[in-house]
Amino acid sequence: MLSDVQANEQGAVAANPLLVEVTRGSQVESWHRAAVAVVDTDGKMVLSAGDHERPVYARSAIKSLQAIALVESGAADAFEVSEPELALACASHSGEARHVDTATGLLTRLGLGVEDLECGPQLPGYEPALIALLAGGGTATPAHNNCSGKHSGFLALARHLGGPTKGYIDYAHPVQQRILGVLEGMTGLDLGAAPRGIDGCGIPVIGIPLGNMALAMARLGNPDDQPEARQAACARIRKAVAAHPFMVAGTGRFDTRVMEVTGEKALTKTGAEGVYCAAFPELGLGVAIKVDDGAGRAAEMLMARLLRRFDILSAAQADEIGGLLAAPLHNRAGLGVGEVRPAAQIPF
Amino acid sequence: MLSDVQANEQGAVAANPLLVEVTRGSQVESWHRAAVAVVDTDGKMVLSAGDHERPVYARSAIKSLQAIALVESGAADAFEVSEPELALACASHSGEARHVDTATGLLTRLGLGVEDLECGPQLPGYEPALIALLAGGGTATPAHNNCSGKHSGFLALARHLGGPTKGYIDYAHPVQQRILGVLEGMTGLDLGAAPRGIDGCGIPVIGIPLGNMALAMARLGNPDDQPEARQAACARIRKAVAAHPFMVAGTGRFDTRVMEVTGEKALTKTGAEGVYCAAFPELGLGVAIKVDDGAGRAAEMLMARLLRRFDILSAAQADEIGGLLAAPLHNRAGLGVGEVRPAAQIPF
Repeated sequence: MLSDVQANEQGAVAANPLLVEVTRGSQVESWHRAAVAVVDTDGKMVLSAGDHERPVYARSAIKSLQAIALVESGAADAFEVSEPELALACASHSGEARHVDTATGLLTRLGLGVEDLECGPQLPGYEPALIALLAGGGTATPAHNNCSGKHSGFLALARHLGGPTKGYIDYAHPVQQRILGVLEGMTGLDLGAAPRGIDGCGIPVIGIPLGNMALAMARLGNPDDQPEARQAACARIRKAVAAHPFMVAGTGRFDTRVMEVTGEKALTKTGAEGVYCAAFPELGLGVAIKVDDGAGRAAEMLMARLLRRFDILSAAQADEIGGLLAAPLHNRAGLGVGEVRPAAQIPF
Repeated sequence: MLSDVQANEQGAVAANPLLVEVTRGSQVESWHRAAVAVVDTDGKMVLSAGDHERPVYARSAIKSLQAIALVESGAADAFEVSEPELALACASHSGEARHVDTATGLLTRLGLGVEDLECGPQLPGYEPALIALLAGGGTATPAHNNCSGKHSGFLALARHLGGPTKGYIDYAHPVQQRILGVLEGMTGLDLGAAPRGIDGCGIPVIGIPLGNMALAMARLGNPDDQPEARQAACARIRKAVAAHPFMVAGTGRFDTRVMEVTGEKALTKTGAEGVYCAAFPELGLGVAIKVDDGAGRAAEMLMARLLRRFDILSAAQADEIGGLLAAPLHNRAGLGVGEVRPAAQIPF
């Protein structure tokens, strides 16, 4: 039953502390354990919890690192990729009309279409967009996939590099190899033998220790030790995301709501299976979080906690955004029934 | 920040063992810890893992226990509640047309309508039903709520008891008090001072130790020590669910697929936040599972494991159902990328 995948070492995982809890009425209903790494640009661990050495798939939390290849290669200039398009390349968007239109706009300029996206179809995550699509007789297409901006960016890079665009999601394709090179430069690791899998949208995922993931995010904010073209690429990506936080997520979403307030002070990004990454450029810090069980609600709570802990958000700003530091849970009739909050024993 | 809810005792939760893991490519990506109790009708623990003494909200996993009140009160007879309607009263359904029609059929016979349901609206969980509803210009109503069958049953009980149906979801309403009495009889506990909260559909949730929850499920299968009317009610519920497994969940869902094969040998039921309950009547056993982090994928995997462990399903039957003992994960393009499976160190 265990097939070819090695059993996990229970010891290592058991070490991850209980950091987030979920209440309902008069008691705690569920718990989440996680590992957290906050690292400076020299790789010094500034704050940590749990095991930050175990390789973790960053999933969508490092889309802004993947977008570096699009910019530093010259592809973004060659195809006149706009700021919203670049922000969308860093997005896990909700499939709202502006997201879909922005992705298809870039595809058209590339001389390509939705059928060239290899991410698979997905219904919009934002319920009003979902209802509008289906009530209008529409269906899920790859352009609605939350990764369609990233994939459009990959196609721009593929067109710029020449050769076939087909198979641009494969590990061996020049697009993915180029991105692997960027990740190696930013994490300081040789990733050729790293654990590997396939993401929900078909691209490779690479196992990276949380500490190195955080280092890469710190460097995204302060890439002074990177080649000049990469420094410029990082600056352009930071500016695009800060200027277009709606493009990175969508209506009501954590990353959008936070970055509308923080601007370039924080570049936060959610990923599947409880991963969250951020760059805090003014502080020279990078953040990587992995919730053991994959729960996004816990990863969000930990990111909110760090945004306050490092004073990226003031208490007043966090209050104004609302629901960040303790997130109320509502039932289907809209009644408050509990909350997601830091566990009592959280060490930061 | 910790407000009025007591902080959890970390020690108790830390004791819950790691039982399920989720792989992607060449490594384990996420982990789930859980507590499990399998109890006979005398309350003897037959198999356990983790802390089975901590009170847990059973959520939707005990809908069949709640339905006992509908039957033993005489309400089911008075309103000629059919077998499919009774099975739907025990359901977390997917909002497919047959589910919605069955709920509204009972409401009509009660002289009530969808507007009397207090569960709140919800879009269908089954994607083709969702698409059909919205493409046809429809919207989410309380009849589409996965709990609409249970709530229709509550309304039948309220009408039978007399007095106002409005507020039938409130703890103090005769409907909920009657159900509380059933739960006390079945769990063997005085629940007046038990931890309490409000469910996603608005009804009270009551904290019950996992061992007692399993005992109540064992008694649902073998209620010999219960009053005669309750014995008859349990038998009628078991028969209804076994005869209409589609009503209890829906197309492709675990409970439906399993009970189509097991018939009355297993009455399994999922609940929110990683709870799963079952009765194995032929063996005189009851099962209760709670995944610490609330993940349904892990609770399903543990239930599948127990169905095999107690030979409710043969290996051939489990194979035929498919994806039970190791559940493949697919990405949006349909490619297999990993699996949910028992952890190497699972003790059963």
